[in-house]
Amino acid sequence: MIDSQLRVSSGIDYTLNFELPRMLHARILRSPYGHARVLKVDTSRAERLAGVAAVLSRDDLIGDRIDPYFGLIIQDQTPVALDKVRFVGDAVAAVAAVDEDTAAEALDLLDVEYEELPAVFDPEQALKPDAVLLHEGARRIIPGRPDVAARSLARTNIVHLFKQRKGDIARGFRESDEIFDNTFSSPPVNHVALEPHVAVAQVSDGQITVWTCSQNPYVVQRQLAGIFKIPLADVRVIVFTLGGGFGGKLNCKFEPVAALLSKKAGRPVKIIARRNEVFLLGVQHECKVKLKTGVKRDGTLIAVEARCYYNSGAYGDTTPNLITRGYAAGGPYRVPNLYMDSYGVYTNTAPTAAFRGYGITQVVWAHESQMDIIADALGMDPLEFRLKNVLQKGDSFSTGEPMPEMHYNELIASAAEKIGWKDGPLVVREGNKIRAKGISAIVKGMATPTTSTASIKLNADGSLNVLTSAVEMGQGAKTALAQIAAEEIGLPVRRVRVSEPDTAFTPFDLMTAASRATFCMGTAIRRGVQQIKEQMLEAAAAQLEAAKEDLVLNDGRVIVRGVEHKSVSYADIVRWTKASNLLGHGTFVSGSGPDGSPVVMDFETGQGYGSAEWHPAVVACEVEVDTDTGKVRVTRLHGELYVGKVINPRLSQLQVEGAMTFALGQVLFEELAVDTNGAITNPNLSDYMIPSFEDAPPQLTVHLLEPHGVTDVHGIGETALPPVRPAIGNAICRAIGARILDLPLTPEKVLRALEKQRQS
Amino acid sequence: MIDSQLRVSSGIDYTLNFELPRMLHARILRSPYGHARVLKVDTSRAERLAGVAAVLSRDDLIGDRIDPYFGLIIQDQTPVALDKVRFVGDAVAAVAAVDEDTAAEALDLLDVEYEELPAVFDPEQALKPDAVLLHEGARRIIPGRPDVAARSLARTNIVHLFKQRKGDIARGFRESDEIFDNTFSSPPVNHVALEPHVAVAQVSDGQITVWTCSQNPYVVQRQLAGIFKIPLADVRVIVFTLGGGFGGKLNCKFEPVAALLSKKAGRPVKIIARRNEVFLLGVQHECKVKLKTGVKRDGTLIAVEARCYYNSGAYGDTTPNLITRGYAAGGPYRVPNLYMDSYGVYTNTAPTAAFRGYGITQVVWAHESQMDIIADALGMDPLEFRLKNVLQKGDSFSTGEPMPEMHYNELIASAAEKIGWKDGPLVVREGNKIRAKGISAIVKGMATPTTSTASIKLNADGSLNVLTSAVEMGQGAKTALAQIAAEEIGLPVRRVRVSEPDTAFTPFDLMTAASRATFCMGTAIRRGVQQIKEQMLEAAAAQLEAAKEDLVLNDGRVIVRGVEHKSVSYADIVRWTKASNLLGHGTFVSGSGPDGSPVVMDFETGQGYGSAEWHPAVVACEVEVDTDTGKVRVTRLHGELYVGKVINPRLSQLQVEGAMTFALGQVLFEELAVDTNGAITNPNLSDYMIPSFEDAPPQLTVHLLEPHGVTDVHGIGETALPPVRPAIGNAICRAIGARILDLPLTPEKVLRALEKQRQS
Repeated sequence: MIDSQLRVSSGIDYTLNFELPRMLHARILRSPYGHARVLKVDTSRAERLAGVAAVLSRDDLIGDRIDPYFGLIIQDQTPVALDKVRFVGDAVAAVAAVDEDTAAEALDLLDVEYEELPAVFDPEQALKPDAVLLHEGARRIIPGRPDVAARSLARTNIVHLFKQRKGDIARGFRESDEIFDNTFSSPPVNHVALEPHVAVAQVSDGQITVWTCSQNPYVVQRQLAGIFKIPLADVRVIVFTLGGGFGGKLNCKFEPVAALLSKKAGRPVKIIARRNEVFLLGVQHECKVKLKTGVKRDGTLIAVEARCYYNSGAYGDTTPNLITRGYAAGGPYRVPNLYMDSYGVYTNTAPTAAFRGYGITQVVWAHESQMDIIADALGMDPLEFRLKNVLQKGDSFSTGEPMPEMHYNELIASAAEKIGWKDGPLVVREGNKIRAKGISAIVKGMATPTTSTASIKLNADGSLNVLTSAVEMGQGAKTALAQIAAEEIGLPVRRVRVSEPDTAFTPFDLMTAASRATFCMGTAIRRGVQQIKEQMLEAAAAQLEAAKEDLVLNDGRVIVRGVEHKSVSYADIVRWTKASNLLGHGTFVSGSGPDGSPVVMDFETGQGYGSAEWHPAVVACEVEVDTDTGKVRVTRLHGELYVGKVINPRLSQLQVEGAMTFALGQVLFEELAVDTNGAITNPNLSDYMIPSFEDAPPQLTVHLLEPHGVTDVHGIGETALPPVRPAIGNAICRAIGARILDLPLTPEKVLRALEKQRQS
Repeated sequence: MIDSQLRVSSGIDYTLNFELPRMLHARILRSPYGHARVLKVDTSRAERLAGVAAVLSRDDLIGDRIDPYFGLIIQDQTPVALDKVRFVGDAVAAVAAVDEDTAAEALDLLDVEYEELPAVFDPEQALKPDAVLLHEGARRIIPGRPDVAARSLARTNIVHLFKQRKGDIARGFRESDEIFDNTFSSPPVNHVALEPHVAVAQVSDGQITVWTCSQNPYVVQRQLAGIFKIPLADVRVIVFTLGGGFGGKLNCKFEPVAALLSKKAGRPVKIIARRNEVFLLGVQHECKVKLKTGVKRDGTLIAVEARCYYNSGAYGDTTPNLITRGYAAGGPYRVPNLYMDSYGVYTNTAPTAAFRGYGITQVVWAHESQMDIIADALGMDPLEFRLKNVLQKGDSFSTGEPMPEMHYNELIASAAEKIGWKDGPLVVREGNKIRAKGISAIVKGMATPTTSTASIKLNADGSLNVLTSAVEMGQGAKTALAQIAAEEIGLPVRRVRVSEPDTAFTPFDLMTAASRATFCMGTAIRRGVQQIKEQMLEAAAAQLEAAKEDLVLNDGRVIVRGVEHKSVSYADIVRWTKASNLLGHGTFVSGSGPDGSPVVMDFETGQGYGSAEWHPAVVACEVEVDTDTGKVRVTRLHGELYVGKVINPRLSQLQVEGAMTFALGQVLFEELAVDTNGAITNPNLSDYMIPSFEDAPPQLTVHLLEPHGVTDVHGIGETALPPVRPAIGNAICRAIGARILDLPLTPEKVLRALEKQRQS
């Protein structure tokens, strides 16, 4: 990575360390109730505390000059509570003071009265007709989302409902020899980025500047412009390198609170989330998947019926998009008859956020567990069973679209070989240790529709500035994008500088998420560079008296092909044009509907186009279960991916390793515990465990299939995560001879399953 | 102005107030000698002082990874002295410490030994063959300046010599009826911007970021990249709104010192110039003009011979360019026979800088004083005498180029009318008060060749970001450029946000100086906006099913001409393109030679193209001289300008008023005094006076001639300054009946002249 040295020498300027002169520090008062009407918020005592500069309450959200509502798709959030609180931890008020301690002290002086309301925590309960409603009035949906407008109805707790209908599900089950019906669940988990959420806001001259660790600065910009009712040109969102994102830093968090406080105080305001608050700012969607699968006796999949219940928590955020990922409930397999309902549901629990593996992970847990259940029942090798059904080039996916070549046969064969699938029995018992192997296959889509734009500046000395709103968050975006720009322009990477996002300067990018930066932004950058190349070639052709077609670009020089001494440096070309720099810009847009609307799948049938690209992966593993303690050790873990052309082999491998390691805790022990109020009881890193180096598999391997001559570039950030859960799950169940349907697979659950197994 | 409210509510973020976490403060050790060899710089004691983080000395300028020399055209400067000091105040070493006091204390601990050398302070002395040399070795000239390379020779103190030869000077004088030969002088003066020079530097990851109050961020970038031997892409220069510039904040000052200290300390470093240091960072060129003018008895100018001696001080900086402004020595008049030598000369005095009126002011003082001397001698009305000779459209200038219509007849007539030139005698005596009128006419060129580039971003809501490296320094650049962009795109100004310069993001601009921002950057912005308009019209034509030619843009909507209800908003167009923003860029290049070289006037003859635009102005005034005290009060001052199309009438008028008020002190009392070492003895605002409100003329008026249908845009920042000096000078001399050739026209000089007058 181009920033490796910085990373190991505390040289990265994280927003956490950012300060401005006269900056205030803010804390947020959070609701102790899961659902309550707010009767009174009296700020007067807090305002009188020495050192307090501003107190923000709902009184500040009233009037013509402000729109209190924001939200990515459904505008159901407010910076602080207007009328109700909807989860334990909902923001009620905020204080900006000279330091954090003073702000915290002032929180205690806020006089708030609540009227508690009945609460609902389970999505299926929340869907019942008599369930208490979280959002009572009419909902405001952003333009261009007719699907959400149609489904996200007042007088229900439905955030969105996405359906897929393909073939004839009833006939499918009639024609099946065997039907398997199971319910799989995934608990809420947290991203646990090392850097907590942090935002600094400065409001002056009608301009809002926010420094925030956001994965999508342009969304934060849009939300702030909406709240303050000012032009986008007046909202500047600046993002430094993030200390991890994983989907947890998408969309607006407390940036509006910081900006409102700054405007009120007339000074910059910084908010740093305490670790317990990080757990309140967005968790992975708890999800239950009811999966009914019909097969022929020979192992041919005939029908899949799936009902997915994604718990959205108290607000909508990304849920209306995320639940469409139920489209993967059938897995990367030919399923002629499909019936799928995917619900996003409001409940009085912590709000949710995108999470690496975006909505796929939960259904992958279901379908890849189910595949092993079926293979076992049919007496087939789970590997052969998958090979029999896996999508081949041109096969129709659940969306009805014909799939590209995804190389599943090679991926499965290679993964099997790497893990030694056929080198002996899949289960080996030695004393109180059982070792077993597992495998899983998935397909993951990308954010679609998707837009990236980039500006490029070739300087007077032939060095290059790439202006991009792509976010570096440890994944190596800067490195990969610099490589792409350098290769396209013909410069060494060290002469290319990739910017950090600043919406006043760097053009639009949808977000840095969904494994899209390298592919989407990489393409935009390439196109921007091509505009500059065109200008260079034009000028060089005139200077060198050669045809443009005869010119090649290499290492900062334009050379007449075959006449090495006839060349001119980029610097000389820029000088010759007299412009002192050459400017270009590039745009990459993919996956919009033919009418420009972002809805690309029909929301009644789920037919259409699901993704601009499809990312296949296979994970194989070996686990060792201690039958005395129930503890599981993952001894071998192998990821096998097709990602097209590999831009940076080392970085790609590390990112896949990271994704797989990240998933380990979510299979084995990560789970947010909640009390009867829906309050998270383990929002800290003592009680909520994440993997340590001791949990890392001794054999952790990655293979990126790169067929000769391949040119397309795929994202790589997430693909290896979802298959880790069922691969390990399948291995554990194979080891203990019993199936556990609910994540995580804790020692307690393993012991209980072993016990049950012994008794049966 | 769009930032008026900010300006009166201390809302502007000046660099002076900018801070970074862990920032150090630096002070610079300055030479007590006017010319000396540096024998020893021992930093060890200073380094040991508690609180000192880094000491910079010449030892840090040695080695392969650094190039110690920099300079705008001649690379004759070093951040701190290498071998010699060349003026009292030359930088010798610098200290970065936790605060300014500690840094100052450490300066006292620096052990420096000097060997004093003979010094030279007067340009004509410095030109003598046996004069001591300031710069002894071979000189490094930047590429593309063959004129300077040919003239700026080692073994002389010549910075540059620019010549003009036109017609036959000997025959011209032979054919003249009368010849007038006088020497006029202008002293060094300071810009006295309210905000002193300040720079903050941060060096990390091989990237240098500098926040500085510079009028040309891209020059600072180039110099820093040269010193540190890194790509331009790795040097980021950020400029906030300046608290005044006036030419005094062009080119590199102590930015390299701040950056070197930051690199050494590993922390950000800030340097603020003390007021006395501001006087050492660049003064207006002291100048002597020997002017010999031949005329016919009827007042026809026949020949002008001029020798201009511009004192460059210790370094070259802008001098090689500035001295070419000797081309105005003949004034805005037809001069068939011209002979002009313009010298820039090194002396052991404070280095010089560009100054509002760039090199013109000094020769204007000469030619407009001379014009009155001649008119008086010939018994002509000075107004009629000027009208007889003034350049008409198509007349040849000193450069040989045919001049455009500059409307002198109208300007002179209008100015005369405004000041009541013909409403009575030009001189009126009442007791010890004499009132008299004066007039002057000038032509001023613009920086040539010149390049501006701009990037434009139309946002998803139809608001506009203008990315420009133009500097706002109180002149209203942001306002004028926002107006230009808003008018071109069809938006209200409040939906346009003009950036501040940041070389990592905002594209190249030559500088904000030379009255070029509105014209050059305005044109670049207009072109960038046109690229976006083209994209919008394309999309709107498809959407509205209309021909592009039938579409008009107004107030954020594209409308089918004559069919008001058929329209689409810019926001809808952007949405329709799916790109989420539209990007454009524009470039304005003017005045380069046909081979791309920036030399546009032949340096042997001065023939060619002097400026991309010519700015005419006429100033008329009335003064009141107190014959007892010699004190002069300017009672009426009127500026009359042709500036093409006026973008913002109020702002233009204020800027012209500002330029004229700025000039007042330079006519009446401003002058840097020096002792026998060349040290400035009045580098403070007690001893060096600038005009106060009491000095402002009770009647200060401006008229901008704007012929019907004019479309070209002229710069306006400087034009009214140079003619103020001789207009007032001519009025004073008319009042006292004696000519003073040397500025400023202090009460002492006035009294002395009156005394002499009485005696004669």
